[in-house]
Amino acid sequence: MRFALCAILAGVFCMSAFSDEGMWLLNEPPKERLKQKYNFDLTDDWLEHARLASVRFNNGGSGSFVSKNGLIITNHHIGSDALQKLSNPSRNLLRDGFLANKMADELKCPDLELNVLQEIVDVTAEVNKAVKPGATPAEANAARRSAIAAIEKDSLEKTKLRSDVVTLYQGGAYHLYKYKKYVDVRLVFAPESAIAGFGGDVDNFEFPRFNLDICFFRVYENGNPVLVKHWLKFSPEGVKEGDLVFVTGHPGTTNRLETLAKLRHRRDETLPYSLARLRTLEAAFHQYGETGPDERMQVTTDLHRVANARKAFSGQYQGLLTPSILQAKADAEKELGSKLRDKDLEAYQNALEKVASIQKEWKQIEREYYFFERGDAFTSELFTIARHLVRLSVEVPKPNGERLREYRDSALDSLKLGLFSPAPIYLPLERTKLVTSLSFLCEQLGSEHPITRVILDGKSPTQLAEELVSKTKIYEVEERKKLFEGGAKAIAESKDPFVLLVLRLEKALLRKGKTDKEQSLRLLFEETIEEPERQAFGELSRFRFQVLGKTIAPDATFTLRLAYGTVSGYQVDGKDVSWRTTYAGVFERATKMGHREPFELPERWKKADKKIDLEAPFNFASTSDTIGGNSGSPVLNRAGEFVGINFDRNRHGLVRNFVYTDVQARHISVHSKGILAALKLYNCPELEKELLDNK
Amino acid sequence: MRFALCAILAGVFCMSAFSDEGMWLLNEPPKERLKQKYNFDLTDDWLEHARLASVRFNNGGSGSFVSKNGLIITNHHIGSDALQKLSNPSRNLLRDGFLANKMADELKCPDLELNVLQEIVDVTAEVNKAVKPGATPAEANAARRSAIAAIEKDSLEKTKLRSDVVTLYQGGAYHLYKYKKYVDVRLVFAPESAIAGFGGDVDNFEFPRFNLDICFFRVYENGNPVLVKHWLKFSPEGVKEGDLVFVTGHPGTTNRLETLAKLRHRRDETLPYSLARLRTLEAAFHQYGETGPDERMQVTTDLHRVANARKAFSGQYQGLLTPSILQAKADAEKELGSKLRDKDLEAYQNALEKVASIQKEWKQIEREYYFFERGDAFTSELFTIARHLVRLSVEVPKPNGERLREYRDSALDSLKLGLFSPAPIYLPLERTKLVTSLSFLCEQLGSEHPITRVILDGKSPTQLAEELVSKTKIYEVEERKKLFEGGAKAIAESKDPFVLLVLRLEKALLRKGKTDKEQSLRLLFEETIEEPERQAFGELSRFRFQVLGKTIAPDATFTLRLAYGTVSGYQVDGKDVSWRTTYAGVFERATKMGHREPFELPERWKKADKKIDLEAPFNFASTSDTIGGNSGSPVLNRAGEFVGINFDRNRHGLVRNFVYTDVQARHISVHSKGILAALKLYNCPELEKELLDNK
Repeated sequence: MRFALCAILAGVFCMSAFSDEGMWLLNEPPKERLKQKYNFDLTDDWLEHARLASVRFNNGGSGSFVSKNGLIITNHHIGSDALQKLSNPSRNLLRDGFLANKMADELKCPDLELNVLQEIVDVTAEVNKAVKPGATPAEANAARRSAIAAIEKDSLEKTKLRSDVVTLYQGGAYHLYKYKKYVDVRLVFAPESAIAGFGGDVDNFEFPRFNLDICFFRVYENGNPVLVKHWLKFSPEGVKEGDLVFVTGHPGTTNRLETLAKLRHRRDETLPYSLARLRTLEAAFHQYGETGPDERMQVTTDLHRVANARKAFSGQYQGLLTPSILQAKADAEKELGSKLRDKDLEAYQNALEKVASIQKEWKQIEREYYFFERGDAFTSELFTIARHLVRLSVEVPKPNGERLREYRDSALDSLKLGLFSPAPIYLPLERTKLVTSLSFLCEQLGSEHPITRVILDGKSPTQLAEELVSKTKIYEVEERKKLFEGGAKAIAESKDPFVLLVLRLEKALLRKGKTDKEQSLRLLFEETIEEPERQAFGELSRFRFQVLGKTIAPDATFTLRLAYGTVSGYQVDGKDVSWRTTYAGVFERATKMGHREPFELPERWKKADKKIDLEAPFNFASTSDTIGGNSGSPVLNRAGEFVGINFDRNRHGLVRNFVYTDVQARHISVHSKGILAALKLYNCPELEKELLDNK
Repeated sequence: MRFALCAILAGVFCMSAFSDEGMWLLNEPPKERLKQKYNFDLTDDWLEHARLASVRFNNGGSGSFVSKNGLIITNHHIGSDALQKLSNPSRNLLRDGFLANKMADELKCPDLELNVLQEIVDVTAEVNKAVKPGATPAEANAARRSAIAAIEKDSLEKTKLRSDVVTLYQGGAYHLYKYKKYVDVRLVFAPESAIAGFGGDVDNFEFPRFNLDICFFRVYENGNPVLVKHWLKFSPEGVKEGDLVFVTGHPGTTNRLETLAKLRHRRDETLPYSLARLRTLEAAFHQYGETGPDERMQVTTDLHRVANARKAFSGQYQGLLTPSILQAKADAEKELGSKLRDKDLEAYQNALEKVASIQKEWKQIEREYYFFERGDAFTSELFTIARHLVRLSVEVPKPNGERLREYRDSALDSLKLGLFSPAPIYLPLERTKLVTSLSFLCEQLGSEHPITRVILDGKSPTQLAEELVSKTKIYEVEERKKLFEGGAKAIAESKDPFVLLVLRLEKALLRKGKTDKEQSLRLLFEETIEEPERQAFGELSRFRFQVLGKTIAPDATFTLRLAYGTVSGYQVDGKDVSWRTTYAGVFERATKMGHREPFELPERWKKADKKIDLEAPFNFASTSDTIGGNSGSPVLNRAGEFVGINFDRNRHGLVRNFVYTDVQARHISVHSKGILAALKLYNCPELEKELLDNK
């Protein structure tokens, strides 16, 4: 207990050389720490190879190249979005799996974009220079937005690479990330979801685990597989206990550098809201999926996403309710202050105070922002499409630097990939989602909230959803293209109920700003919350760098990071949990759980205990620092070989959003040797051969 | 549509002679309406027979005697609480069903109490007389409480019957209900839950339906089956379309006589809170049940209860979000006012205004009341037990008339039946429930709410729940008895963590009242909300009786009521829905749904299509006015024979809390002929014989 608290304190305050904490920037790698603790020389070549072999799944995950012919491995639960979109009533790829026996059989995903990071440039000075001293938050916001858009556009034009300026340290630094982009991505292999997600929600975030959570894709250009220079050699033996391992992937979000006031706000406002919302969606999706096999296929990915998030957020919430965790944060803030003097101390305290006062303002508009700007009132693909179409017609005519971020030139191609995706949209599911989210809006803000009234327009959520879904045409891609190409005029003339809904919503969201000019909720948020917070965190970062140097990695931002750790088990209630499971274990667990869903093995697996190496390692645990978004990240050994694929962390790791601890917290991976063992069941010699072809 | 609105308006305003609306008091029966619409003479003998053959399940349902030897039929989902308590890891009666081949094999339920209504006495004058003119709400509350306790105690002593004063018309009348009580109740027969609850949550509140939702018990006294004079003859042919039917049962709660202001409060406060809570519990229970077969057995009843309530409340909420429903209520209030003049009109408007202003006060304390007084922060059997033990030690020494209602002399026996029940309490489930409900408390009121802080005592919900469950002893009945018998001294000396929790909670709930005396939250509620509301509704009832007479039945109060209606189908989207389903239908539906839970038939049923009359009616629909609590109510024909058993209503009937409509809303019953057909599969000739023995 004392040790655990120590570890937590250290985590909040600074990353001890003895801990494996850190999701490190590839351009600020932890060379010294690795040398000191593991006597490992992290060379630039090693880093470059790992970077160029790592892949970002733009829909929220990670992956890596594992052959020179553009073969990519990721998690089944990252591939599931594509699997579902490639399914139909007569072909359920999610449930039944898929194998392309030859390249010609590989299935093209309708709207999957993959990114490979080519270069990082620190543009902090350039971004901050744009903001003149004494600028109001509104001016600062506009100047920063414009500077970032210009940097991105310039980079895109010069390099043809996807170019994103990333805000690091909550505003302490800005880096330009340049990606090679792949949009012709084809499905090669997926196992059945019953073994990929064995144990379902019950075993999610638990260990020991037994999941073949893998999926193979291949990237194409001009109709041919892409030949890549950097890909990870597949290690047939993989890791053993005590090995040093690395994880290169795209952790989504952490909150470790947030202040006490911001964490309290998360505990008291953001998380309770998010949990209530997720539970509401989960109940509705669950119920929808139970109404029949087709409905089940349609809703599987949504259901998994919200169930997973609900469990993750519950763990975060329990973390923030644990007094020692917030106490450690308070102590750390005091400790850093004690190293500062005079004006520095004053500025530091002012910045902390500024963050605290921003939370109070945020509280006033947070739920409105979520419902109306983020779109929580309309959990619906059709609404999202209509909102984009309306906003594109307004934003695209503006100069690049003045547009909302998601409509800047450098982002348009990726946006259009989704907007014009031929992936099916299921109207009955849309109806359910709309009734659910509109009702949740009423529950939270009240049915008589002025904007709610504008939205509902004298109808109940059920009546409005019915009207929207029965009368819209924008589920047809052609209709969307027509509206997009017709611009403002087409939008103004449209009678589509979703377009009309968005138009009346956008109007209702305008309010008198400080300059008496009408202002959108979005701009209000950017000017009164986002920009001031960025400035205050910029200040706090400055003092942290001053006292501690760059010994603390920035919080996760769904960009490429390097983590490392040791393959190891742990103890629970005094009992040892082994570092790995074996295939024998999955059959035992299925039997113990009565072969009942989610513990029912696929047919192929039911008698597989005769055909598979029961002693082969299946899943394993390590101390590396990961979080959601790291799903599908390759696990590498010292030689930079592929030894496994991360797919989850255990429940002790759920507090990792706020603190790193390695006492019990572990991330969980499929073992490379286990992958080879499992492939034996799928009769795919070509795939095995390609994986093991190390030349 | 126009017709539906008309029906709704009529429902809100007055019960048209053409509608079958009404959950009628047995001492104010709708004789004229039945004569007028159905040419049926509702005789006193018919009523007496129906009343004495109807049974209240004190755990929240209804039933009826169906043989002279004390055989009772109710729903499986009403019997499920007992089925679960009689189960253990080696005997899962819920899942597998049960049949006693002879009386000696019947299983005694640990804590089931049944009530049979013997007499109703109007005590309105006596109760109101106790409240002196000009009394403060506090004085009025104390006087009314004392008068009611005295009436009940006097009746109990004189008659030895369970004696409850029931508040009707929200305070418009008070009737004394005297019940014969049975506490030796034995399980005779239950089918498998897979056929009793076929379709699970998916088909709940839907029609067509295919549920064998039945369960048989027998009451005993002094070790022998009770011989009853009044029991329902079982009709082997049952009903056909168009038949007039009656339902005698115990509808739990309706809100039709509430004012617009109170319904708005429900829409804006009560229902959103309740829905959030139910979803939270449902997710936790679901997850717990998935962890293994034993866990599933332990949590089945809880899970069904919250899932059912969540679906019912969602329907209510959608109803209140439908503008026409509240508009009709507003119109009806105006309409009634238009019939009043001068002082009456003023008093009527004052009463409406009073109810509205009480809602504002209620809003200030409502969630605290739910969490801390109703116990929503501690969804735990052990907490409930500890709270009773602590309060019993305080209340029982007081004079009967000054005690909290649940501890008055006339209620103690029933309370002790539950308190000292030997039914198992599952500690891991208790832990889950406590973590869930304590976390929900934090989400809703904040972890820094002063009372929350007192409860958590510096721990997280997880830590507190762990401590409570691992250190308590009150899961042993002997320990509870010791604490009960030891009274205040034993409580003061107890180190049990649940007792300590209750003690610190009770202290935290004391606050300065208006008289500067410390007052509990409970008393604050009774004096500032309950009593003033009762008085205002008393006024409103007076004017309603004045204008409309007793043409409107009081809202449901979980007391015996008579409803009636016509066996009939309805239309959905222009398509006919038949009045009944058949056994052929259940096999079709199982096949269509892939024989996947909750559509997987029990083994016995899988090949039953050879042994059962496929054309026999299974479930049927009627227009009678029912609500939750009516589950298990017998359906009677003109001759007073048992023709079916109510178990649900369709989703169109979910608005029945607020308005009656017969356009599509139906209650759903198992057909008596269908019951006989199904029993053929269970090899129970004795039971069949007993049911058909009409002598």
